[in-house]
Amino acid sequence: MEKKFIVETSARHAHITRETLETLFGKGHELTNKKDLSQPGQFACEEKIEVVGPKGSLKMSILGPCRPDDQVEVSYTDARALGVTPPVHESGDIEGTPGVKLVGPCGEVEIAKGVIVAKRHIHMTPEDAEVLGVADKEIVSVKLDTARPTIFGDVVVRVSPKFALAMHIDTDECNAAAAFGKVYGEIVK
Amino acid sequence: MEKKFIVETSARHAHITRETLETLFGKGHELTNKKDLSQPGQFACEEKIEVVGPKGSLKMSILGPCRPDDQVEVSYTDARALGVTPPVHESGDIEGTPGVKLVGPCGEVEIAKGVIVAKRHIHMTPEDAEVLGVADKEIVSVKLDTARPTIFGDVVVRVSPKFALAMHIDTDECNAAAAFGKVYGEIVK
Repeated sequence: MEKKFIVETSARHAHITRETLETLFGKGHELTNKKDLSQPGQFACEEKIEVVGPKGSLKMSILGPCRPDDQVEVSYTDARALGVTPPVHESGDIEGTPGVKLVGPCGEVEIAKGVIVAKRHIHMTPEDAEVLGVADKEIVSVKLDTARPTIFGDVVVRVSPKFALAMHIDTDECNAAAAFGKVYGEIVK
Repeated sequence: MEKKFIVETSARHAHITRETLETLFGKGHELTNKKDLSQPGQFACEEKIEVVGPKGSLKMSILGPCRPDDQVEVSYTDARALGVTPPVHESGDIEGTPGVKLVGPCGEVEIAKGVIVAKRHIHMTPEDAEVLGVADKEIVSVKLDTARPTIFGDVVVRVSPKFALAMHIDTDECNAAAAFGKVYGEIVK
């Protein structure tokens, strides 16, 4: 088996709760799948929201399905445009993160926390982890052989039978590495 | 001597010719030094221009003194906002690069070429090069121990007695590495 894996860029996006969905888009509204993502069951939605910070606002897609917490994932470039200073956290780790206002066609929600810069990570199955010689939560470095070759350190490995093998970086990291088009990464020790 | 060196982030900026300066700011205009930069003789100017691309425009500072060619240095994020697709080039290497319109308070200039994404580089004196064990034009990798640890590959070494020791990265690279505040780099083999 090939030891390289695809590196995908996550543009800014929001995960929202069912309650937030209904406030923003109306009672009983269901998310519309626009495009399946690499992770099984995850999809980009037709629905877009405006995320409003102290300095500015940005339009972004919702990723479905609904989750237990509202979470907005941005790059540092986006964070500066919004006027917030989020920490680099893993998805789901929203304690101590800044809030923003989410605005939809039917209403708005002030979230007290939830804005993060996502920590670089690799999704993989237990089988992938065995082949790659890594374990869940392990911190590794990943080399990208692009026009701007870069080794990203502090990449967290996330293992679940529900995942598919893919590394996720944000748009700043994509630009820094010129990771445009189909790009592959490799774990380096 | 310490083998680490400071890593500075270059935000988007323009270098302009004397002719362009006079078209944009008026006959006989002289650049106003706002702040000396790390490289001896180079300075950020009070004068700002609007750089207009096919998709959008961005305000940016001029770096002085005037140069033999107009050159606009942007990040990929900036390039997308302007609607241009510049290559990653060393400063001064503007053949085959896109043009844009430069707008000042007294006039505008269409440049046929000159927009680049600056290639990562380290300025140093011959003495620095000896200590660091590198030569002019050598390609090295540089490790940044930041909150988002990153090793930048394809970094070009530029040696001149007129330089001061400093690595320059762009804003995307700065964000990708969380290279905020006073940050140091180290050459890794």
